[in-house]
Amino acid sequence: MTKQWVYRFDEVEAAEKATGSWEGVRSLLGGKGANLGDMTRIGAPVPPGFTISTEACNAYLAAGNTFPEGMWEQALEALKDTEKKTGKKFGDAGNPLLVSCRSGAKFSMPGMMDTVLNLGLNDETALGMIKLTNDDRFVYDSYRRLISMFGSVVLGIDDEAFEAPLDDYKEAKGIKADTDLSAEDWKALVETFKKVILKHKGFEFPQDPLEQLRMATEAVFSSWNGKRAIDYRRAANISDDLGTAVSIVTMVFGNMGSSSGTGVAFTRNPATGESKLYGEYLLNAQGEDVVAGIRNTSKITEMQNELPEAYQQFLDIVARLEKHYREMQDVEFTIERGKLWMLQTRNGKRTAAAAVKIAVDMVEEGLISKEEAVRRVETSQVDTLLHPQFDLEAQEEARSGGRVFATGVNASPGAAVGQIYFDADTAEAKAKEEKQEVIMVRPFTKPDDVHGMLAANGIVTSEGGATSHAAVVARQFGVPCIVGASEIKIDLSVRSMTAGGVVAKEGDWISVNGTTGEVFLGQIPTRTPEFEEQKELLTILQWADEIAARKDVRSGPEGFPTRGLMVWANADYPADARRARQYGARGIGLCRTEHMFFEQVRLPIVQRMILADTSEERTEALNELLPYQRADFAGLFEAMDGLPVIVRLIDPPLHEFLPELESLVEEVATMKATGKTEGLAEKEDMLRNVRSMHESNPMMGLRGVRLSIVMPEIVTMQVRAIFEAAADVTLKGIHAKPEVMIPLTGHINELNWIQPRLEKIAKAVMAEKKVEFPYKFGTMIEIPRAALTAGEIASVAEFFSYGTNDLTQMTFGYSRDDAERNFLLTYVEQGILPRNPFQSIDADGVGRLMEMGAREGRVTRPALEVGICGEHGGDPDSIKLCHAYGLNYVSCSPFRVPVARLAAAHAALGI
Amino acid sequence: MTKQWVYRFDEVEAAEKATGSWEGVRSLLGGKGANLGDMTRIGAPVPPGFTISTEACNAYLAAGNTFPEGMWEQALEALKDTEKKTGKKFGDAGNPLLVSCRSGAKFSMPGMMDTVLNLGLNDETALGMIKLTNDDRFVYDSYRRLISMFGSVVLGIDDEAFEAPLDDYKEAKGIKADTDLSAEDWKALVETFKKVILKHKGFEFPQDPLEQLRMATEAVFSSWNGKRAIDYRRAANISDDLGTAVSIVTMVFGNMGSSSGTGVAFTRNPATGESKLYGEYLLNAQGEDVVAGIRNTSKITEMQNELPEAYQQFLDIVARLEKHYREMQDVEFTIERGKLWMLQTRNGKRTAAAAVKIAVDMVEEGLISKEEAVRRVETSQVDTLLHPQFDLEAQEEARSGGRVFATGVNASPGAAVGQIYFDADTAEAKAKEEKQEVIMVRPFTKPDDVHGMLAANGIVTSEGGATSHAAVVARQFGVPCIVGASEIKIDLSVRSMTAGGVVAKEGDWISVNGTTGEVFLGQIPTRTPEFEEQKELLTILQWADEIAARKDVRSGPEGFPTRGLMVWANADYPADARRARQYGARGIGLCRTEHMFFEQVRLPIVQRMILADTSEERTEALNELLPYQRADFAGLFEAMDGLPVIVRLIDPPLHEFLPELESLVEEVATMKATGKTEGLAEKEDMLRNVRSMHESNPMMGLRGVRLSIVMPEIVTMQVRAIFEAAADVTLKGIHAKPEVMIPLTGHINELNWIQPRLEKIAKAVMAEKKVEFPYKFGTMIEIPRAALTAGEIASVAEFFSYGTNDLTQMTFGYSRDDAERNFLLTYVEQGILPRNPFQSIDADGVGRLMEMGAREGRVTRPALEVGICGEHGGDPDSIKLCHAYGLNYVSCSPFRVPVARLAAAHAALGI
Repeated sequence: MTKQWVYRFDEVEAAEKATGSWEGVRSLLGGKGANLGDMTRIGAPVPPGFTISTEACNAYLAAGNTFPEGMWEQALEALKDTEKKTGKKFGDAGNPLLVSCRSGAKFSMPGMMDTVLNLGLNDETALGMIKLTNDDRFVYDSYRRLISMFGSVVLGIDDEAFEAPLDDYKEAKGIKADTDLSAEDWKALVETFKKVILKHKGFEFPQDPLEQLRMATEAVFSSWNGKRAIDYRRAANISDDLGTAVSIVTMVFGNMGSSSGTGVAFTRNPATGESKLYGEYLLNAQGEDVVAGIRNTSKITEMQNELPEAYQQFLDIVARLEKHYREMQDVEFTIERGKLWMLQTRNGKRTAAAAVKIAVDMVEEGLISKEEAVRRVETSQVDTLLHPQFDLEAQEEARSGGRVFATGVNASPGAAVGQIYFDADTAEAKAKEEKQEVIMVRPFTKPDDVHGMLAANGIVTSEGGATSHAAVVARQFGVPCIVGASEIKIDLSVRSMTAGGVVAKEGDWISVNGTTGEVFLGQIPTRTPEFEEQKELLTILQWADEIAARKDVRSGPEGFPTRGLMVWANADYPADARRARQYGARGIGLCRTEHMFFEQVRLPIVQRMILADTSEERTEALNELLPYQRADFAGLFEAMDGLPVIVRLIDPPLHEFLPELESLVEEVATMKATGKTEGLAEKEDMLRNVRSMHESNPMMGLRGVRLSIVMPEIVTMQVRAIFEAAADVTLKGIHAKPEVMIPLTGHINELNWIQPRLEKIAKAVMAEKKVEFPYKFGTMIEIPRAALTAGEIASVAEFFSYGTNDLTQMTFGYSRDDAERNFLLTYVEQGILPRNPFQSIDADGVGRLMEMGAREGRVTRPALEVGICGEHGGDPDSIKLCHAYGLNYVSCSPFRVPVARLAAAHAALGI
Repeated sequence: MTKQWVYRFDEVEAAEKATGSWEGVRSLLGGKGANLGDMTRIGAPVPPGFTISTEACNAYLAAGNTFPEGMWEQALEALKDTEKKTGKKFGDAGNPLLVSCRSGAKFSMPGMMDTVLNLGLNDETALGMIKLTNDDRFVYDSYRRLISMFGSVVLGIDDEAFEAPLDDYKEAKGIKADTDLSAEDWKALVETFKKVILKHKGFEFPQDPLEQLRMATEAVFSSWNGKRAIDYRRAANISDDLGTAVSIVTMVFGNMGSSSGTGVAFTRNPATGESKLYGEYLLNAQGEDVVAGIRNTSKITEMQNELPEAYQQFLDIVARLEKHYREMQDVEFTIERGKLWMLQTRNGKRTAAAAVKIAVDMVEEGLISKEEAVRRVETSQVDTLLHPQFDLEAQEEARSGGRVFATGVNASPGAAVGQIYFDADTAEAKAKEEKQEVIMVRPFTKPDDVHGMLAANGIVTSEGGATSHAAVVARQFGVPCIVGASEIKIDLSVRSMTAGGVVAKEGDWISVNGTTGEVFLGQIPTRTPEFEEQKELLTILQWADEIAARKDVRSGPEGFPTRGLMVWANADYPADARRARQYGARGIGLCRTEHMFFEQVRLPIVQRMILADTSEERTEALNELLPYQRADFAGLFEAMDGLPVIVRLIDPPLHEFLPELESLVEEVATMKATGKTEGLAEKEDMLRNVRSMHESNPMMGLRGVRLSIVMPEIVTMQVRAIFEAAADVTLKGIHAKPEVMIPLTGHINELNWIQPRLEKIAKAVMAEKKVEFPYKFGTMIEIPRAALTAGEIASVAEFFSYGTNDLTQMTFGYSRDDAERNFLLTYVEQGILPRNPFQSIDADGVGRLMEMGAREGRVTRPALEVGICGEHGGDPDSIKLCHAYGLNYVSCSPFRVPVARLAAAHAALGI
């Protein structure tokens, strides 16, 4: 028996049996053939037809472009069956069957391969069609399309050869649009196109429909080895030996009178997710009319009145399709003389809100499992739902109206509108005192700008990259932010900025889209979704947490976490902690104590402490700071009642709290040159101090645990403040769980030196206050050497927290402050780096250290708590790696917590 | 049969048989007991005696301070044997035998355990001794020593209890020194000391000699578990269960008349190594008289006249001892009434020159193998032989004469004398034009000071640490250097420096000891050994090279080097390369091309190149630089004819070639404030440029391969210069082997981008010049990520060279420029770091990366050439690690090459 090369649409079961799986069917019949067969199987009225298999294609190509034995005979038989099912006849002038010939490989290769429509039309059948449709313009238009498609696709004639005479014709007639051409015009062009073929190929356009079909089939087969297709396969990493199938499908027409029509529909509302049919259709029209928007479409529901029978059938079919695919479907259909035909069905695209609602609804409808629902929602969709958004139409108007002032790096997502102010103090004053909406614009930002940044609705900088100070702080606090908008030139002396010749003055309104990186002139309306009100989102995240909490999602040696990742948050203030908890954080992974030092009231005390000549003076200033810190910590512990709070001891170099060297040099030089003596001595004194603390590479200088060993007074105060706060709230019935984190450890001996000294304070405070509560001492792992010697370090540290910002800096040798400006963005653009390693963990280098550190740390201490508190903790791809490395939690900015919760579940589900 | 607890000195063979090895004898009898036994065995006249074993000690301690069964009986028997051998009798007033009771564990624990001398003296035998010696002062002095030693060591009475009455006695008599006390005085004190014992212990000092011996033995056993001994064992990592042995040795006295004497001698000259007996002796004296220097000693050779028989015997015995130990011996001896007694022999300490000569001579004498000779010479000894040294007496005089001006970090060894100059230009001018000897003194140095540093005999800085710029450059060029001499305050405005109230003006003479870190006022004479003239050193290094070249010194998987380390040198100029080759370097591991950019003629062109607005202007400036670079490289290739030369492409950030930001800010501010406009625009322009290139952490900024990707013109010129030079010299018959090294690679794609572009230039030049020669392209491994992804990187790089300076910086996160000043020295002092990781490779962190990198690189490319060119390449401990990691070579400064050659051999020998 000859091999089966041809499968009718209703033979999909046979194909499945032959190949053993649905995957096999897709390989054999291509995506399109399989989809048409599948719709047919579940009873949807698909225009009859058949598919010539990919095996036939491969055999054809292997045999030097010869159909394999029996194939064409099987195709002709299937064609006969199609004629029988449609009651039409291929090449019959009275009731002609027209077909399309469509390519379809296993994987979608959009636009890469070829399709020919209207096969079966010739001079005779065209006349027959005119009789049937009473629409000679449509028929000649269809005919000329066949000839030009056939010419280009099958015969390989350049498109230009058909477009040129069409253009000439229109020019001669003074006609602009194709739609203005009449039936006579198209008829004339049919003749012209026939001549084009004769001229280029030396033979006539074939009038024999079977000849058309055979040649079209061969053309589709051959197109598999066309240059375009090969290039695409190389790029998309698709195997060359799959081959393409050819589907021959009966043409149906929605423009055959008032009982015909065509439309597209979604089984649910793709904007809101509401479970209600959503779509549009046109009576007596072709599919392309719906798309082209020439005529006003009707709502799909109106079909109920106009074509009630077809409508009922349609409702029934789409319900069945959705149930079959267990996904919202995007369908195309045509009604030819009252008869409904389903042309395509596929999973429908949707908004973020719809995606979440549909997923939740489908679980409730019993269509899918919770896992499947969580799987289907994308992290970027959750992100979208958390940030204010511009009204899309208004934004589009602003774009087309030339109101884009500049573009930069989309550093922190969301939309913001406000008046421009160019320094932190003014920005804060305007926002707080005059209740203005404020956008703070600066060349770049520094720690002492933070009060202005927090008061602003949005931030724009002309310098810096995605991990510059502005970007990091903005993401931390969820403030929309654009950095490195280098077109913008800021002139602080006249309080204005310029870009592309346009000037914006202080107080002018701008709108900032932190998601796209666009800065607009003027105001664009925004809308803000409330997290608490997004019930379906809360449900999805709840399920995500359940999935991540399962015991079966990871496996590993003893000490390996037996559940998936938890999500914690980085929060420096009680308000942040409350927000983090509201967003679902199960702990604080990083409280940066030095931010507290920058507050206006405290900074002078901090400076006094730094400049102290004796340890006594220093301790005196620290004693003044202690109550502030204690109050900060107490607030955090209250907000996180029952959950762990990791407090990091002071990290930055002390000169960050002093005035900047360069400005001081300038001031002193100017005072000296102009003979100004008042205050000169103080300035010079400060300059001396700043200079003595100046470091060539402060990032690798006297900071973190190094500072604490050289000058232990500060951390002594901090640990006392932490434990006094924890004791006080414990006595009030709160469950405080402090974890003290020592930053920048690179050698076990650093911990050996400092940790016992600090634990002594902890125990002393608990004894003084007569109270006990659980606590831990641990360390950041942010120095490569710490990861390389993690086995040793875990002998002292009770927990590790990967500081991946610094770890990335040191592992790559990239200074975060400089790299993006100088070469990193160039590296990413040129593909030297696949991604910015400060945004997504570099698995091969930084990730390798993380994996080693976690593994070897747990050999020493199986119960070691390992987390991440770097910027990467909120990045879904990085979260996947953290899951693989066996981390216990990721800690990210409060605003990223919901995204991270979903990402943690995705990691647990292995996607 | 009872166990043998006691071994006479002539029973060492039995002990060896019982324990199976010499190591076992040392364990059983302790170091001292074994040594006395060994001397006895080879026929040296050792005062008779015996050793009670460590096993007896352990049994005693285990049984709650009870002698094991049979031990004391064995000891008494051995004592009888000793009496027989000496013809004296223990406790006999007529001819009393006196003995010492000495502790001795397997490992030397100096001062930690106890010894009692003169056991056997009592009121009766003292009188007998007076008759025999005619020296009642000596006898009563000995007796009071016994009583006080016995009191403190055996009875545990505080030393103070004996010292106080002695002091009182002297004060009452108006006597200052013990030597002024007469026989009568000592006799009175004997009685006083007896009362002290009675008062403290309630019993009399035991007059029974056997009781003395028993109690002393118990005391030595118990001292093993004394606090001092336990603490010492903890610190020195000595096991607690070894126990101590007790040796009972006949006392011999060199002060028994004119046929008695005592002395110390070396079998060869410990200063020069000359093979001739060297030592001193005193007739009729005790050993302590020789040491105390109260009487003038005679040369050992005079003994030939005074005690010819004993001298001949002595010569014979020391020759035998040297032959036996195959090492120069340091011996102590006493002649009692014409009878020679050997009291001790041990390997003698010697100078560097002597060590080398003795090792070579002993090979020639057939005493030791070449391996043993190489093994015995220490790397620090080779180092000493390479640098000028101060005349030791003159230096000692300067020290005691208060001429030490200041001390600092001994950054580069050797002695230098010169006149002080405070800036590079003056230093160079004085040295070159006026042929002065110059010491350059600066707060710190920068790259543009190098011309002055090279012209100077020595360098002193008041700031910076052992890896500061000054230190690194000084070591590189072998200039003696002291850095961080923080007592020195330099006042450039009056051209002077002050320390401890003393002022030194420009032009004053100072002397600098870079080996000890001392700065002296005035001139101290020096002597400089010539490398080429040190025949024995050349021989040792020749043997070292042979050992390192052996195929059996390493083992590993395929691709692992099958010979030991080679030694290459870091050299930037042809003169350095020639010196390196003279010192035995087998290649250049690092030529830093940017040093060439700092030369006075070139710097303006370099600045023009950097500040160029267009790529054309830049290329034009580079075309001017090309002939300079080509000439530099041609000189290197000629000097290294036949050996590989690794040229590193430009590494530092470009702003290093421009003026400093801070001074520019100051200048511009001053000009503006004073209304000075002339040249202001240029200064402001330069300031803008410098500011735009300013980086927060330049060490991790735009440099190395990053700079070359962003601005490829410089390396394009450099590669052309390298290959044109190589081609030119090849045509002259020189064998050039250029290896082009790309610095700061962190990602394989950086090499993927740049290496093919550079290889294209290389091939183009060879085609133009119609010549071919071998070459390689490779990379520095100095970024942690490069080591972590070495497997990938080796797919492109043909060689690796570890840049351990930067690798240490990044792995620890320590900025070399700041760390030593701010915390690193504190860390080393406090033991937080065992060593400065910039001086010796940190095996656990940096070393682990090196090991991984070399291993994984070779998996990809088995023939990968792997070396090290960081400062560590000249450090013996680091060289050992490099051997273990399978590196092919170490590259160090030319002056360290001889040291490294020896260290490489030591590594090959597994020491």
